[in-house]
Formats: sequence, structure tokens, C-alpha cells
Amino acid sequence: MVNETQHTCSASSSSRSDGGSSSGSESSKDNSRCSTPVLDADRHERLREKMRRRQDAGDKWFSLEFFPPRTANAAVNLISRFDRMGAGGPLFIDVTWHPAGDPGSDKETSSMIIANTAVNYCGLETILHMTCCNQSKDDITGHLQKAKRLGLKNIMALRGDPAGEEWEEEVDGFNYAVDLVKHIRNEFDDYFDICVAGYPKGHPEAESYEADLRHLKEKVFAGADFIITQLFFRPETFLKFMKDCQAIGITCPIIPGIFPIQGYHSLRQLVKLSKLEVPQEIKDVIEPIKDNDAAIRNYGVELAVSMCRELLDSGMVHGLHFYTLNREVATTEVLKRLGIWKEDPRRPLPWAVSAHPKRRVEDVRPIFWASRPKSYIYRTQEWDDFPNGRWGNSSSPAFGELKDYYLFYLKSKSPREELLKMWGEELTGEESVFEVFTCYITGEPNRNGYKVTCMPWNDDPLATETNLLKDQLEKVNRRGILTINSQPNINGKPSTDPIVGWGPSGGYVFQKAYLEFFTSSEIVTALLKVLKKYELRVNYHIVNVKGQNITNAPDLQPNAVTWGIFPGREIIQPTVVDPVSFLSWKDEAFALWIEQWAKLYEEESPSRMIIQYIHDNYYLVNLVDNDFPLENCLWQVVEDTFELLN
Amino acid sequence: MVNETQHTCSASSSSRSDGGSSSGSESSKDNSRCSTPVLDADRHERLREKMRRRQDAGDKWFSLEFFPPRTANAAVNLISRFDRMGAGGPLFIDVTWHPAGDPGSDKETSSMIIANTAVNYCGLETILHMTCCNQSKDDITGHLQKAKRLGLKNIMALRGDPAGEEWEEEVDGFNYAVDLVKHIRNEFDDYFDICVAGYPKGHPEAESYEADLRHLKEKVFAGADFIITQLFFRPETFLKFMKDCQAIGITCPIIPGIFPIQGYHSLRQLVKLSKLEVPQEIKDVIEPIKDNDAAIRNYGVELAVSMCRELLDSGMVHGLHFYTLNREVATTEVLKRLGIWKEDPRRPLPWAVSAHPKRRVEDVRPIFWASRPKSYIYRTQEWDDFPNGRWGNSSSPAFGELKDYYLFYLKSKSPREELLKMWGEELTGEESVFEVFTCYITGEPNRNGYKVTCMPWNDDPLATETNLLKDQLEKVNRRGILTINSQPNINGKPSTDPIVGWGPSGGYVFQKAYLEFFTSSEIVTALLKVLKKYELRVNYHIVNVKGQNITNAPDLQPNAVTWGIFPGREIIQPTVVDPVSFLSWKDEAFALWIEQWAKLYEEESPSRMIIQYIHDNYYLVNLVDNDFPLENCLWQVVEDTFELLN
Repeated sequence: MVNETQHTCSASSSSRSDGGSSSGSESSKDNSRCSTPVLDADRHERLREKMRRRQDAGDKWFSLEFFPPRTANAAVNLISRFDRMGAGGPLFIDVTWHPAGDPGSDKETSSMIIANTAVNYCGLETILHMTCCNQSKDDITGHLQKAKRLGLKNIMALRGDPAGEEWEEEVDGFNYAVDLVKHIRNEFDDYFDICVAGYPKGHPEAESYEADLRHLKEKVFAGADFIITQLFFRPETFLKFMKDCQAIGITCPIIPGIFPIQGYHSLRQLVKLSKLEVPQEIKDVIEPIKDNDAAIRNYGVELAVSMCRELLDSGMVHGLHFYTLNREVATTEVLKRLGIWKEDPRRPLPWAVSAHPKRRVEDVRPIFWASRPKSYIYRTQEWDDFPNGRWGNSSSPAFGELKDYYLFYLKSKSPREELLKMWGEELTGEESVFEVFTCYITGEPNRNGYKVTCMPWNDDPLATETNLLKDQLEKVNRRGILTINSQPNINGKPSTDPIVGWGPSGGYVFQKAYLEFFTSSEIVTALLKVLKKYELRVNYHIVNVKGQNITNAPDLQPNAVTWGIFPGREIIQPTVVDPVSFLSWKDEAFALWIEQWAKLYEEESPSRMIIQYIHDNYYLVNLVDNDFPLENCLWQVVEDTFELLN
Repeated sequence: MVNETQHTCSASSSSRSDGGSSSGSESSKDNSRCSTPVLDADRHERLREKMRRRQDAGDKWFSLEFFPPRTANAAVNLISRFDRMGAGGPLFIDVTWHPAGDPGSDKETSSMIIANTAVNYCGLETILHMTCCNQSKDDITGHLQKAKRLGLKNIMALRGDPAGEEWEEEVDGFNYAVDLVKHIRNEFDDYFDICVAGYPKGHPEAESYEADLRHLKEKVFAGADFIITQLFFRPETFLKFMKDCQAIGITCPIIPGIFPIQGYHSLRQLVKLSKLEVPQEIKDVIEPIKDNDAAIRNYGVELAVSMCRELLDSGMVHGLHFYTLNREVATTEVLKRLGIWKEDPRRPLPWAVSAHPKRRVEDVRPIFWASRPKSYIYRTQEWDDFPNGRWGNSSSPAFGELKDYYLFYLKSKSPREELLKMWGEELTGEESVFEVFTCYITGEPNRNGYKVTCMPWNDDPLATETNLLKDQLEKVNRRGILTINSQPNINGKPSTDPIVGWGPSGGYVFQKAYLEFFTSSEIVTALLKVLKKYELRVNYHIVNVKGQNITNAPDLQPNAVTWGIFPGREIIQPTVVDPVSFLSWKDEAFALWIEQWAKLYEEESPSRMIIQYIHDNYYLVNLVDNDFPLENCLWQVVEDTFELLN
């Protein structure tokens, strides 16, 4: 963050992410004979190694800086921004640290928790900023320990702003960023990758530009791995700075901090805080258009693009660090115009991978949480190891309870009023619920003209893959088979297939058809009769909220429903239907009726009672068609069930 | 064994095996998230449970008794008999115990080692007999500990013969089988399944038939799990005995011991030792034909078949125990005529499963030992756990050295003279070696009119599956690509396919094409040029005896080359090409040239020097075509290589 309290150091910060493209997994258990094949070297490389690898490969990259939000709602929005901007493939993101804002606390707006969410729930390589000024060693150590525990691996070591007007050195205290660098290396050895700030124009409080360069060298020699610079307005400022650094023996990567001008006021505030001077040629352009936000932003984008091009063309710059001000549009546009925003449709696995180091071998998950990956990560955060290659006999997979459906990173992005418009201000019967499901599937507006873009079980519009099944899904939802998860069967499509592909290229992916839905006990009774005909082909699990469970699956056996075959590797089977996990998922799936839907309405209201009735009486059903090379028979199963009912 | 020194007790013995049909695997690590799916409940059931399950299912079964051989050569033959008779699906086999023959020693002819071989190398459920008479508690405990260590899980507890003429009770010694049963239960708790002997006519030394029944009841109540009877000549003898047992409260399974008469002398000896009387109606038939072995054996088979039918038809008998006298023909014929010899072409996994309890989760192996599974088991016997689901990153799989190529269970069944006839009394050049390989592939006789039915790398004729590749293999062997292992690509054949199928029914099996061969450095040079064109498709490992290693495989990554998808289960991938194991296999594969082939010839002889030259100069190559859905390109690779050479 450049326009807040941390101007002296904030200009440099960095955290790394491969966004949606971190992939696969790597064996971590050296002595185990049962480890995971390496799908992608990225999964367990350190940030500094990834940086070097990208540089060696001649690859240009970018990173994004965010500041912690002020409110819980803003936190929800920031997290979805992480997901969206993560899709462009940043090498990392970083989260700034503001001592006044209780940055190490457990509040959902703290730097610590936002960084934790970015790593664990959004799968982004992340750098957490940390300042040391006016803080005790114990406090600092406590913050670092907590960061490590949460899976954070990178720290931006900063001095921070002095508390009073005029800053004075404390004896034995942390007085400079270099003290923090030394402290991290003393206390945590080589665990963290450390980043420090560089000032292309010299730190405003430094005796001189040269003295400031010497301070930077001290920080690097104390153990910093790379440097991110304060913003600057002219490419030659950075290039000179870089040469000067190299001249005094600084050889680590130096990443220029880019600030796309996004508005007149933010620029003025920034300039005031950072004590930088805006060059006259920029002032000359901006002053006349200062009330035209769009014009300023366009200019800012132009300026950033041309400066970045010059930097990249110099051959000295491999990565660009963007001060986003928590905004999306300008930065994304600059990145796209530079051609380094890379939305990679190829997924390393069919689900979003967490970046917590503990989870780096993880490559199998139950299919149930396909649309709620953050909930899955939350409920398995206490696990010491993760399924790797095979789900196994999960006779007691200890899923954490999901009591608080309002955890900000699990919360719906839509406010209550919007949900009511989508899901109905007033329900008149089970049929109105069928309609909501049907509208979600079809994408058609509901009777009040609103599109249903999310459901309690899926906060996003329908996945492209599910679109393959749209017609059939629409038909069955209309008749009370309320689908919440499904996948078509796939018999060996290339791993690069834009819709169902995942994993390294040159492979083949496979799926068994899967269908999961809520439905009434009448339909379940008919369905069970029909399923007798499909006994050898279709596995089913049928359960109600009380846990009455009907299944034909072999005792506690997981069923692999997605797998991939790749050149020179072992088989990867990233999703399974696991009977035991299904019972944990069932609690969550039923609770979402109440927590997300029923509670929109007044207690005792007819709408609420309708949802409560469904919650109390419907069954949650999942079906797997094991015969993946043949045409999916699950639609026929449902068709037969309706026929039997007529 | 019924016609040797152990007549008083030997009539009952039993050991259980599922022969070639033990299958799949089952999760054993309760706390692991990375365990193996259950392919077949058999894999970890106790013998007594398997017996009960077969009985509950109304399934008839049989078991086979063998005695330890007298010579090392006889041991080799017995082991291949285990393999052949194991194919018929015995529930178990058992190995008798002869105190005079050092039965607990490490000699290859000891009962302990034969039973060990049956369990570990032939995958047969096995009962080891043990007698207690005239032995110290420490000796007995030592034998039992050793048996446990070797993976034996079942003991036939017998008294054994007294050492002197007239037997007297020892104070505090083991005087009766019941003492041994109690000792096993005291010292080993419930670890072993225990079998005891029953005497349908009463033990010859017992005071009376009734007193003997009471002794039997004592043995059962002391902890025996089931009873195998001494042989008898009339079905009513057994059926009366069984009813008498039940009348006094013996409820465990009682398995009749069946002795198909195979010759006049063996019958006479048996009768003498067991103090049984041969019924007059049998004597009347046999005496006139006593010099006609074939006639006696035919009669013996008839008699056994009719007695067995009567027993099975009674509804009281579910399993039949055969005293084989280490012979194959008569017993196999009886079993086939009864319809309980069940050669199951379906394999639980594509390789023969060991029955050692430690290995019950094992379901992945390197493909290299496909034709030498016993060597693989030998070289991995010290492993504490086995690959389960995934081979993993085997950065240091500690394979035991295979120094002694003459271990009896690894030895060729063919004697030196036969090998010389097959592989050439005198070699005239590398081409004569090419010819041997070619004759082995084609099944045509060599220039001296002998068929080549085995090779140093494969003691059996070509596998049916390899026959699919016969024409191509013949072509390349003629030209010096000396193949030792190969499989075709398979893109989803039913798991019940008679040639390439394995695993539970209803599944689909897949393979990547594989080819492994020795070849000259000239061919390797050309091959490497050709492989450049196939870089993304074909993985190769090329190594010479000195360990010079050329590969394009991702660092230490195993490549799954056989896998299966089954209803309601996780993926099984039973064979992999593992780069690290390949280097262990390489040592063995090269050594076999010398140990099995070169050493047939005199030192310094031209024949020996030719083999030595190949050993020193050829490369071992393996190729995998990763694109399993397309036509196998490996033949084209070889074709291109020859073209380049021309």
C-alpha cells in the first residue's frame, strides 16, 4: 500500500503466487514409499527459487500488492478479488502491515488473516509485510511464529513509521529494517524468504542517496533474498538505481514497484505520504483533467504501460510489482496490454490447490466440496497430512465442524437483499424452490426478472463443465431432483481440453458420471426400485438429515471419479466419492438450507417453513455410473424413476 | 505326509491357500490416509475365517498336503509343483514336519523353508506342521517365532512319534498335541490359526475310540481352530466320526483327509505306518493288479472320486484335504473330476501376489521383474512396508543384492544339459545368441531341433499376452534387439478379458506399451537419434553394465504402465517403470547373462567369451509409449532405427 500510513517502507512489498496455476504435487516424505509424483516443480519451490527459475527461463512475471480491508464486507470482496486477480497468474501477492490496525490479530480484517486467507484459501503465494519500529522482540517473534503456523513463508521486512513525530533510535530495540532481517534469520534460520524495500530516489529520511544504497546493501547482506522498490515515475530512475545497486555489490533480484495513476486524489495523497515529487510533465497532463476520473485512469494506464515496456525492454527487469490500491481495473488493464496477464485455462488439478506448505502433496479430495473448496480447506485445516495419490480407507477422516457459516471467506458475495431477489421474497411451496434451482441451471431470469447466479451450495454461476449437462439438469430440477453437483463421464480426453482438461499436457483425463441432488422421500422410494436394475453399474449413497443412510457401495470404499494418465508419471486421481466423508458433507449440505436460505425469512414465516420442511424431509443422493466408457446411464435412472412415479 | 515317520499324527494336516487367486489388497494402516482399497476380502482374512466364509457361501474347497523334499533338486521341483497345483485354487497347502530331518533349519529341504517358500514366493496360504514330542519348550518356541517371522500364520499341532520303542510321558514336557496347542496359545496368543489331527477310527494308541474322541475335544477346547483327519477308506467311517464329534460338543470344522491310492507299495507302507486296516473289498481289487501301476492309480482315482462325492453329497463336508505324496497326477485328476479344481484365469493383479502378511497391502511393483517375481520378492524381503496405491518417489528403494543365483526357488527348473540344448552347445557369434532369443519368441525348434522354452530372464514359456506381439518381437530379435520383457498397449479392455484382464469384474484395464531389450552400442546410437523424434511421446532408460545411464524421464519419476478402473474403488496401478529400481534390475539382468548362460561353458571357451562380450558391451533399454490410446509406436521406433543403420 502506498497511500496509507506506511509510506517510508510500503513502496516495496512482495509475495508470490502462481495463482490458479500452482499445480500438482511433489513427494515430501523422503522415507515413505507412498509419496506423490511431481506434477509441477512450482508446488514446493521457495519464492526466491521460483523467481530465479522464471528469470532463467526468460519469463516475465508480475506481482500484486494489497492492503488489508477496513470492514468485514470489504474483506469478503477482497477475497473474491484475490480469486479473480489470481487467475491472471501473479508470481505472488503481498499484504501490507499497519501497526495501528492490529495487523497480527485474528480479526478478519487483520493483515495476518488476509494473508492467511490468500495462501490457504485462494492458493496464492503470499508475502506478509511486517514492521518492527516500536515493537518488542517478543511481539515480533510472536507474529512470525503465527505466520509460520498459518503456512506463510515470505516476509517483507520493514521499519515502519515511528509512533511519534520525530523518530529516535531505541537502544536494543528494532530501529531499522535490517534489525528485523537479522532477527528473522536468527530466530527462524532460513525458513522465511525475506524481501526488503529499495528507494530509487533514496529514502526520504536518509542522509543521502549513497548512504541509502549502503543501508540497502546491509539489509541484503543481513539475509534478504530480494528487493522491491518504492514507486517512481520515470523508468530511468529505476534503471539508474539498479545499476548503482549492482555497482556496490547488490546482486539479488530488484523488482520495480509500479503505481498506475488511478485518480487525482489518490496520487496527491500518495505524493504527500511518500515525499516523492511528481514530475512536471505528469502534472502538466493531470491538472487539466483532474475532475475526469476516467481520463486520469486512461492516462495512468498509458503511462504505466509505456514505463513497464521500457523497463522490460531494458533486459534488466524480469518482474513488475504493482501497487493495486486494492483495485482491479487499471492494474489488470496494464497487465493485459503488456501481455503478461496469463489466464491459464489449464488446471493443475480439477480443484483449486491451497498454497499451505503442509498441503503441498495433497492431490485427492472428495467430490462433494467441488463448489465449496474453501469450506473443504477450512474443515481439514487441522489435518497433519493430506491424501496423496489415494484417498484410502478413511474410516475416520476427522472433518472439522462448520459451525460458523459466516466465516468471511465462506460467505456469499451477495448481500441478503440480492439473495432474496434470486431465491424468492416469498416461497409458495416446494415448487417455488424447484424453480430457483431450475433458473440457476438455465441462466434464465426468475418470475421477478432476476437471474439466479448463486445457490447456497455454490456461490458462483454454473461451471462450464456442468453446462455440458444443462438440458438434462434443467429437466430433472423442474421435477424436484434438486441438483447441487454433477459431472459428465469422460473417456480419455486430452489433458489440454479447454473444458474438462487438467494436469500436464500430453496426458488423458477420465471421469465417471456423477450426480448429486436433494429430493423427496417419494422420489427416493421409486429411485431405489429403479436402482435395483443398475445394481452392478451404479453406486449410490442416499441419506437424510438424521443420517439414515442407504448405499450399495463396498464397505467404506472410496470410488475414484476423476483421474488422469500423464507421460512419465504415476496415475493421478484427484476426486473420489468417499462414503465416510459424505456423511460429513451431508451435515454441511443440509445446514446450508437453513443457514443460507431459511434464515433469509422471518421465523415462522411460510417461506422459512417450506425450506425447513425440505431440510427435515428430503434426502441427499449421490449416484456414480461406473461404466465410464459407455453413455452415462444416470439420466436414464432418473427418467425411469419419474416413469415409475407416473 | 502319511507314509513316512509321522503316521500317528500326520494324517491330519492342513494349510490354506487361495493359490493364484489370492487377490487385491486391503487397507492395513488404520491411521494412514494413504491405504489400499480392498480388492478382495481374501487378502487379509485368517484361514479359519476364509474357511467359514467358503462354507457359508456353500462353496466346496480342497487343500493339499506335501512333505519336504530330500534333495535340493527335489526342492526346485516341489516349488514348481506348488505353482502348478496352486493354479487349481487350493484353500491352503500344508507341509509336514519330520524331527529327524532338521525341520526348523535354514536348509532348502527343511519344512520351515519349504513352507516359507510356499507362502512368500508362491503366494499360497500354508500350514506348517509341528511336532512336540521329545522337544524342549525353548526349541518349540524358537520354531514358532521363526515361523511367525517368515510370515507363516497357521500351525498343525501334532504330538509326533516317540523317539524310543515304547513311549513314556515326560514330566513337564510336551506329551500330547494338546500340550503344544496350549503352549502356542500361551506364548502367541491368537496369532496362529491352529489345526489338530482327528482319527476317524481312533488313534491306534488310544485306550478306546471314545477316549480318543475325548482327547480330540481337549485339543479343540485348548484352542484349536479346526481338525483334519487321518485318512480312511470308507465314507461312512468319516461321517460316523463327524457325528460322534458333534455329539460330544466339537463344533469346529472337521476336514476329511483323502488318500487317493497311487500304487501298491505306497499303500502297503502307509498301512504299516498308520496301523490302519485296508478293507477287504479294496484288497480284493488291488491284489490281482498289484504290478500294474496305471491300473492301480486308475482304481485309486475312481475310489477317491466316489468317496469324495459321497462325502460332499452328505452336506456335512465342505472341504477335502488331499494327501498328495508330493505327486500331482492322481490328486489333480480327482479334483478335476469332482469339479472343484478351479483354474481362475482372472488374476487379482497382473503379477503373482505373495501371501506374507507384511505384503498384504502391496499393489505396485516395477515391471522389470514381471517374469522373475520370486526374485523381486527375495530382493524386497527386508522391506518394512510395500508400495500401496502408488510407487512414489523411490529415491532409495533398498533392493537386496541377488548374489546367489542358485537359491533353489530362483533356480531354473531345467538342468544344465537341457539348457545347453536350448541355448546352444557351442556359440559361433552374437548371431547365435540372436537365434536363441528368436526361437524362444517363435516357439520353433532351434537348428538342433530343440525348442527354447526358457531364457535366463524367464524360466517359463512366453506369456499369452506377449504372444500378441509375437510377429514384431520375432522380427526385431532376429536383428539383435534382444527382448526380455514387453507388453502391448491396452486402452480400456474389460477386466475379465482372458488375456490381459485382471482384478474384480466390471472394471476396465489399461496399459502403456512397453519394450525392454538388450542391444549393441551401435544400435543404441541410432536408436537415440530416432528417439529425438519421439521425445514427447516415448520415455526411455538406456544403461550398460557399468551403469552409464541415458534417459529422458522426469527426475526419479515412476511411470505407471498398467492400471485398472473398477466399480466403487480407487484406481489400481500395479506396475510402474521406476528409474531407480531399473538400476537395481539392471545389475540382475546383466548378471543373468553370466550366471545362467556364460557359466554353462568352459572358462575361456569361445561360447563363454561371446556371452561375456555381450554382457560387457550391450545396453539394457526400456521404452514406454505414453500415448496408450494410439497405435503402439515402439515398433516404428525400432523400424526407424534399423532404417537409419542401413
